[in-house]
Amino acid sequence: MHAVEQKVRDSFGRQALMATIGAELTSVTPGAVEIRLPFGRHLTQQNDFLHAGIIASILDSACGYAALSVAPERVEVLSVEFKINLLAPAVGEAFIARAQVKRAGKTLTVCTADAFALNQRNEKLVATMVATIMNVSQ
Amino acid sequence: MHAVEQKVRDSFGRQALMATIGAELTSVTPGAVEIRLPFGRHLTQQNDFLHAGIIASILDSACGYAALSVAPERVEVLSVEFKINLLAPAVGEAFIARAQVKRAGKTLTVCTADAFALNQRNEKLVATMVATIMNVSQ
Amino acid sequence: MHAVEQKVRDSFGRQALMATIGAELTSVTPGAVEIRLPFGRHLTQQNDFLHAGIIASILDSACGYAALSVAPERVEVLSVEFKINLLAPAVGEAFIARAQVKRAGKTLTVCTADAFALNQRNEKLVATMVATIMNVSQ
Amino acid sequence: MHAVEQKVRDSFGRQALMATIGAELTSVTPGAVEIRLPFGRHLTQQNDFLHAGIIASILDSACGYAALSVAPERVEVLSVEFKINLLAPAVGEAFIARAQVKRAGKTLTVCTADAFALNQRNEKLVATMVATIMNVSQ
Repeated sequence: MHAVEQKVRDSFGRQALMATIGAELTSVTPGAVEIRLPFGRHLTQQNDFLHAGIIASILDSACGYAALSVAPERVEVLSVEFKINLLAPAVGEAFIARAQVKRAGKTLTVCTADAFALNQRNEKLVATMVATIMNVSQ
Repeated sequence: MHAVEQKVRDSFGRQALMATIGAELTSVTPGAVEIRLPFGRHLTQQNDFLHAGIIASILDSACGYAALSVAPERVEVLSVEFKINLLAPAVGEAFIARAQVKRAGKTLTVCTADAFALNQRNEKLVATMVATIMNVSQ
Repeated sequence: MHAVEQKVRDSFGRQALMATIGAELTSVTPGAVEIRLPFGRHLTQQNDFLHAGIIASILDSACGYAALSVAPERVEVLSVEFKINLLAPAVGEAFIARAQVKRAGKTLTVCTADAFALNQRNEKLVATMVATIMNVSQ
Repeated sequence: MHAVEQKVRDSFGRQALMATIGAELTSVTPGAVEIRLPFGRHLTQQNDFLHAGIIASILDSACGYAALSVAPERVEVLSVEFKINLLAPAVGEAFIARAQVKRAGKTLTVCTADAFALNQRNEKLVATMVATIMNVSQ
């Protein structure tokens, strides 16, 4: 496994929330990360849609790890801020968050990410995020 | 109990995620809502801070219910978008999300909310949110 | 000229600010709009970069007109909110804002847009926006 | 004049855009800044409201200078990102932007700001901003 992917997988493995909700890291390449989450009835809001905070959780992790995948070796990352637009009801068998680096700076990296609902192999865009991530020396 | 509080508590009770993470509705008044979440090791990111997506979850629910508390009777609410700034590491025994309506319109309501970490009764600001919520006829 | 392009050009022509700063509508297609602004010393911030508010102005107009280009016939648009990330100093001979519709709903349309600085025909990404636009019946 | 106010006024004086649109710095205290802008027909969008980009301009400058007012001595500031919600049509004789520091960190400062329309001494809230500002060593 590539060193970058290893670093991202190690950190993802320490995010207890990802295991708690059943999220999986399905792809790591330099500058792009994908996370998959099966639908769970215990993660919903009042209309049985996936709660916006859970969509935000997988998008935020995907953005953070996309940033980490292009960061210098001894650097950790922290989210500074993010914004999410909820574009359609988050209804599906599973959800995919795909993040990519928009611009990597010395201190700050900006990522964008989309979340898709999966229904019988059909993907539907349900949310989009822009996030600012900070490089922090370990 | 006031009808508005009842309506908010009923909807909160249907948000399975809130029960899953252990969040409680601690205050509902017209235009302002407070949610309390005990810290849980299973809700953390890689540094053992509460995951930003979980802080976003309680802030988003608090914003949505602040909006609902001033909405017309037969109206439900949905989050359109939100933005969160993470101001300090989310470390604490518990977390409080406090939301208030900034402006209620016919279709859209804008709320702001702050999240505080509680440590030995001391509150520390850890995040702030602005959210746009839409009124939806039932 | 296509009816959609005419509608967008008419509305752009009524935005006094666009004429004031010298912005031009350089492309209108269904779902995508481009605006061009020559650099002006009178539009700068303290470091002689284009002021973030002026970059926001052309990105916001581009997003609004991308939304209008896919809106029903008798509908006008208003910006509900936008977020901009400033990715690099806005230094250049001219600036291009390119917006596209991310999702068009019945009431709300979400657009994304990028701003580029032009230097000797070389484009550099300097800012990115996400905007929520509302359809308003005339 | 206090050294902090002098530093802010000097930098504001170098923002050519502020002079171009007729904006004035009406108050500077540590952590809070106010800017006033008279209405101008040449600064409008298609409905003769003040263009959202101009409201963003005075809110962004107010946020940047609120951040500068609490920054270390030899530090300049740059906007990293901001989000604005447009709450009511920007119609008025003049506009006031009031910004305050929400949290000042070593590298990043988060400010919030409100914009008000003035009509016969009556203030109406028309927009609200959250901005992230970066300290940059000169």
